[in-house]
Amino acid sequence: MIGGAALQSEQVPAGERAARMAWARLVEPKDAEAVSLISRVGAEEALFSLDPGSKLGRRLAPRLEVLDVRRDLHVAAKLGARVLVPGDDEWPTGLDDLATRPFCLWVRGPLHLREACERSASVVGARAATHYGTRQSSEIAAGLAERRFTVVSGAAYGIDGAAHRGALAAEGATVVFTAGGVDRPYPRGHDDLFARIVAAGLVVSEVPPGCAPTSWRFLSRNRLIATVSQGTVVVEAGLRSGSLNTAKTALDHHRLVGAVPGSVESAVSAGCHQWIREGRATLVTDAAEVAELVGPMGELAPTKRGQQRPDDDLEPRQRLVLAALPVRRAVTTADVAKACAQVPADVLGALAVMQVRGLVTRDEEGRWRKVTAARSTG
Amino acid sequence: MIGGAALQSEQVPAGERAARMAWARLVEPKDAEAVSLISRVGAEEALFSLDPGSKLGRRLAPRLEVLDVRRDLHVAAKLGARVLVPGDDEWPTGLDDLATRPFCLWVRGPLHLREACERSASVVGARAATHYGTRQSSEIAAGLAERRFTVVSGAAYGIDGAAHRGALAAEGATVVFTAGGVDRPYPRGHDDLFARIVAAGLVVSEVPPGCAPTSWRFLSRNRLIATVSQGTVVVEAGLRSGSLNTAKTALDHHRLVGAVPGSVESAVSAGCHQWIREGRATLVTDAAEVAELVGPMGELAPTKRGQQRPDDDLEPRQRLVLAALPVRRAVTTADVAKACAQVPADVLGALAVMQVRGLVTRDEEGRWRKVTAARSTG
Repeated sequence: MIGGAALQSEQVPAGERAARMAWARLVEPKDAEAVSLISRVGAEEALFSLDPGSKLGRRLAPRLEVLDVRRDLHVAAKLGARVLVPGDDEWPTGLDDLATRPFCLWVRGPLHLREACERSASVVGARAATHYGTRQSSEIAAGLAERRFTVVSGAAYGIDGAAHRGALAAEGATVVFTAGGVDRPYPRGHDDLFARIVAAGLVVSEVPPGCAPTSWRFLSRNRLIATVSQGTVVVEAGLRSGSLNTAKTALDHHRLVGAVPGSVESAVSAGCHQWIREGRATLVTDAAEVAELVGPMGELAPTKRGQQRPDDDLEPRQRLVLAALPVRRAVTTADVAKACAQVPADVLGALAVMQVRGLVTRDEEGRWRKVTAARSTG
Repeated sequence: MIGGAALQSEQVPAGERAARMAWARLVEPKDAEAVSLISRVGAEEALFSLDPGSKLGRRLAPRLEVLDVRRDLHVAAKLGARVLVPGDDEWPTGLDDLATRPFCLWVRGPLHLREACERSASVVGARAATHYGTRQSSEIAAGLAERRFTVVSGAAYGIDGAAHRGALAAEGATVVFTAGGVDRPYPRGHDDLFARIVAAGLVVSEVPPGCAPTSWRFLSRNRLIATVSQGTVVVEAGLRSGSLNTAKTALDHHRLVGAVPGSVESAVSAGCHQWIREGRATLVTDAAEVAELVGPMGELAPTKRGQQRPDDDLEPRQRLVLAALPVRRAVTTADVAKACAQVPADVLGALAVMQVRGLVTRDEEGRWRKVTAARSTG
């Protein structure tokens, strides 16, 4: 458990952390120019050497005027949020696969973010989900939690919210990546859900406290959900769902993608079906299959089997003989032999084996009778 | 249209045809010994040279006693059934891929069997189907019929019956392979369906008239459904469904297999999901996708797309600028530039493009306003 300290233990110099917090205020997520400059000269130097006359300088001028990192540190402390930067022990290393990784992350909640994500799956999908979809989302999330996977999602209505709830119900770990600041739960109808996750899981954002969740930030946030975990499951998604954007980012970064099938008559399963058809997603029907997909090698889901039947592994001749027995009448070995065009000796052998297996009985006159009803097949 | 003549035009000698009809009476389908003997010496010679003291001879003795091919010819003529053997123009060549192809086929109905099967798909599945399953089976079969595919199935309750009905409703071609004789519709509840198919399609069997549909004959019949067409679609199937046996035979003979997804909570979709998961079946959601799967190359299903939106293919910067516009208020270019941390010139360029596309409007004072609601993403 990590307390409410605003900053991590100092694996990273304070100046670097403050500079990254400043960049998160100055530009929007995925700002290619800022990312590139920082990767070349470092966050502090990029800030100090900023030429006010350059294009980047002019872009940032209005926000520079109101920049106040000291106040941001204070706000984070008040929220009980910590600010993570690359190099911190708690920094989730999956994000380092991104060309535009976040400048920093605001984090609220008692879990260790990197450790929580080391064995995690993202569960995403439509906001306009069906009852079937939300039920499956909760079921799968709960099953993942029982298998010690952290459930990552975006806390939206529909599939996302159901995933977090399923994980919480199973007393498992769950992490929200939110598109606005960690002090601005979105949607507001999920205020209580956010509160529960701040208390038991983690709420994470790459934009500073106070920031509104804009559509740009939603799209940007999706790349974090896609890469922080080992794989993404799409529970329900229309053909144009934003969750397919998340799935695509996961795939582009060599994460595994699963999709839950549903009715072909449901528009919110159409995206899942399309991805399965095209071989981009693996069809998954339960948490065990998701765990097999995203977990370490060898974590295999049990193969689903129907109920075993006594006539399961009969030899072809035995099956032929069994098929020749009438349903109700008792018959002689010769009758059976005639009915299936086999010699009596072979028929007797087959009947003896099936007698041992309880499929046929023989009466005192040596006549045979079927025990189970014929297994009809269609 | 082929009339009710009992025999085909004589591409095949009468003796060969009669001998094959005799073999169909003497042994059960897939009798390996008989098949092997016939393939070595021919059907007539196999019959004439049969040693009554050999094992095969002793096996057949009871049935030889009651063999009467002349009567069988008479029965076929009375039924308006014709008897096909390999070499006949109407013989469906797909069956020649079988190691144990039928000795002959009894056929009732006005279509040309080989031609009907040249562009065909088998539609199979559970007898204990759901409403969803039977609806999809009918829909897919009707869609295949509209695309000039013959729908092949087994006329069982559930998926099979619905497939035939869908094809008939679309005035398409449909072929039943039945497990008993062509004069013994099974199940009896489908008497009317058989009558409609005898009138408009084809009812086919490899066992002679009068034969009961035993479980052995069901299993044997499945291999005909699997190989006579170019591919098999499983609409609903439990994990132990006989229709997976059909699908397996199709796959073993290099036919294409499709499966329709459904609720993961439905036991009769579990077999379909397992086959899709394991890569043995392609997920299909409608007739167009089945046609793409089993039809000639290039017969592609239209790619499913969601509704087009005006903000569909915005550049990242345009998307960033659009996200920075408030939902209700009108704002200046400078306001927007500040909100998204871009220089005003770039923002103006992006806004101008989006104005042309109807995404933003500008009022008389030069202020910008969003036209559509922000596309929220989750």
